[in-house]
This record gives sequence, C-alpha cells and structure tokens, in this order.
Amino acid sequence: MATRAPRAIVFDTFGTVVDWRGSLIAELSAFGAARGIAADWTGLVDAWRAAYHPSLQRVRSGELPWTRLDDLHRASLDRLVAEFHVAGLSEADLRHLNRGWHRLNPWPDSVPGLTRLKRRFLIGPLSNGNVALLANMAKHAGLPWDMVFGSDLFGHYKPDPETYLGVARLLDLEPAEVMMAAAHNGDLAAARACGLMTAFFPRPTEYGPHQARDFKAETDWDVVATDIEDLATRLGA
Amino acid sequence: MATRAPRAIVFDTFGTVVDWRGSLIAELSAFGAARGIAADWTGLVDAWRAAYHPSLQRVRSGELPWTRLDDLHRASLDRLVAEFHVAGLSEADLRHLNRGWHRLNPWPDSVPGLTRLKRRFLIGPLSNGNVALLANMAKHAGLPWDMVFGSDLFGHYKPDPETYLGVARLLDLEPAEVMMAAAHNGDLAAARACGLMTAFFPRPTEYGPHQARDFKAETDWDVVATDIEDLATRLGA
Repeated sequence: MATRAPRAIVFDTFGTVVDWRGSLIAELSAFGAARGIAADWTGLVDAWRAAYHPSLQRVRSGELPWTRLDDLHRASLDRLVAEFHVAGLSEADLRHLNRGWHRLNPWPDSVPGLTRLKRRFLIGPLSNGNVALLANMAKHAGLPWDMVFGSDLFGHYKPDPETYLGVARLLDLEPAEVMMAAAHNGDLAAARACGLMTAFFPRPTEYGPHQARDFKAETDWDVVATDIEDLATRLGA
Repeated sequence: MATRAPRAIVFDTFGTVVDWRGSLIAELSAFGAARGIAADWTGLVDAWRAAYHPSLQRVRSGELPWTRLDDLHRASLDRLVAEFHVAGLSEADLRHLNRGWHRLNPWPDSVPGLTRLKRRFLIGPLSNGNVALLANMAKHAGLPWDMVFGSDLFGHYKPDPETYLGVARLLDLEPAEVMMAAAHNGDLAAARACGLMTAFFPRPTEYGPHQARDFKAETDWDVVATDIEDLATRLGA
C-alpha cells in the first residue's frame, strides 16, 4: 500500500494495458482466413514480439539512429513474412498488418480501472510505442488517457532514464510525484532508479504458453495489485 | 462546409476553448477579496494577456532561449504586480496565481462539442501552453482530449510551422489530414500555409470590451461555424 499518493500515473502498455498477443493472433488469423493464406500466424506473432527487444536495443545502443516503433515493427514483419513463408501480401497488406499494433484490445479490467483512476490522477501510457500508435490504440480500445507519452516525444526507449524523467519534466512534477505502473518488474526497476513511485500487477497470460517471468512482484514495489481495477481501489480512486 | 474529413482536429485553446479573461478576472478578484488586497484585477489580467504575444515573440525571434509559457507568464506577473501596486504576495501566492492559467473554464459549448467530435476524430489542443498547463487545464475543465500538443513538445510557439507540422508528424498523418480549429484568423492562416485544413468560429467576447478583431472569418476557411457544437454538427459528429 502506498503511503504517498502520486499526482500522475503512467502505464506500460503492451502486455500491461492491452493484450498484444491475443489481439494480434486473432487479427492475423482472421486476415489469413479471409484471404485464404495458410500460415503459422501464432508463431509469426510470437516471433514478431521476440524481435521487439533486440530491435529496441539496436536503437538504444546507437547502432541505429532514432527509429519509431512502427518502423521497427515493419522491418521485423518484412523479415518474418519471408521466414514464415507467407506469400502474396501487397504493400497495402503489410501496412495494414503492421498497423495491427494500433488495434490491440485491452484486458477486461483496463478501461474500468483507468476510468476510475482518471477521476483522481493524470494518467497516460509511457510506452515504447510512438504517439500515433498509442493515440490510435486508445481510440480503438477506449483507453481514457489524459496525455500520450510516446517514445518519440523523448527520442529514447525504455528503460532509458530520459523516458521516465521526461514524463516528470513535461508534467512539471517531481519524479516522486509520478507513479509507473507495469506488469514487468524490469520496467519498474528502471523507473524506481529514476525516483518514480512504482505499481505492479501481473499479466500471467501475456506471453501465452511462453510466459517465463513477471508472474509476481519481485521486490517491494510501492503498490502491488492484482489488476488495474485493484490498483484503483488501493489508491482510493 | 468541408468537402474532405480530417482524421484529427487540433484546437487553439486560450480564447478558443477556454475563457481565459473571465476565468482569471473571477479568480484574481476572489483571491483579492479573500485576502483583503484591493487592486485593479481586471486591468492586471488584461495587461497580463497583453504581455503574451510580445513574450512569445522574444522566444520566436531567438532573443530568449526556449522558455515554457508557465515561465513567461510568471515573468510577466512579477512585473505586473509591481506596476499594479499589488503588495503582500508571497512566493506561494505568486505561484498559485500563475497557475490560474491551469484552471481556466471552458466556454459552454466546448465540452459538449469536443465530446461529440472525439467519437469520430482524434482531438487535442495545439496551444502555446506547455503540456503541464494544458493537461491540468483539461482535468480542471473536463476537456476530453485524446492527446495534448503542448508547445514544449516542439520547442516552438505558434505560428512557427514546427508546431502545425509537428502534430502531423506525431500523429503520422499528412498535414491535409489535420484540421486546425481556432477563433483567430491569424492562427488559421499559418496552419493553412502548412497545408492543414482550417475551421473558424468566433469568440466575440474573448477580450471583453477590448476585442478588436476576429469577429468573423476573414477568408474561406474550410469550415466556418458558430461554436464547437456547430463544428461537430458540420463535421457530422
């Protein structure tokens, strides 16, 4: 239980607020069925997400200049459709599939929990997604953000400190007045190192049968909840 | 009447969405009454706003480095409390009064009109206010923005093109897919020069008895409406 109240709460998004895996498997499978393209769509989605951290790391290390997540996703997709022998996709198809990341669905507690939290706190995503991706996702999923903190506002990907500290700077708050909420212990460790408050809740099915971590809080985060509705309750919202 | 539909609509804020003059005169007058400080609060508010464009211009011209509007407001306030012989204000008082710009009230049509427009379009302020000012104002006034485009995201003040084009870049839209909505013909002229769509509606009481311009559309803006609710109607929202 938090002993202090934050002024703003920012949320990791992929996995924490939206179910990227279930959403993309459903979308790509339906696309394949409608187009008569048989493929291991589930395998492709898992491989797509597996390419995420390595591609971010290429930007974080300076090997690549700043590149928006939409463009990193697209480069990975282009490689994976070849690896998974998905044939017959037009440029328009590839653009449509890549925008699947803009159409992810929320976990059941996300919209009701965020709606409660919004009454009392400034809320926003602090995600490695770019602003366009996050704004379109919010429209699709009904996420009631006050402000969208896309990584392109900072030119940095989490866990770079420029992201966590950038939220405090833009909101004119002290880092300790901002709470980072995530289903990933590593994200929270980086936020805490920058002085932010922290809230954890697990998303044990995020990676489906491949989930290997983040089943529980690994340290004494300021709040440990079961989901976003429970977070709202624990914060008195 | 627009022949094309935008994907996103961004709004000038001071005067267009919120009644800065009425709000600040009410707030400062109430503050003065509660504290027993007699002063020409109305004159101070008008002088504060009169300092706005010259102070922006000092940043736009390069005379000052990038400075947030909150800090420009504060520098003007410090000067004006002396000019208006307002004595007895503490540092906390000055901070509180300066944050009055975060607590401006909407015109009556703003929240219902924006709520309708939000169902169909991405909406946000594109204001010379900084993100913290605009996010706090939205919380105070109930403005249902999808995203807050503060000038500190761009390090530029309108009418610099970096602001209008920055919205299109962050939303990954063509400039022609973004509509600028304002009660100020000059703002719309700059937006149109960048390729944005334009919508005008008048706010003839914005400057009270000192209003000297912007009583009507001065050219063929893409949409000319009577207020934000009428804009929603004209855009089919």
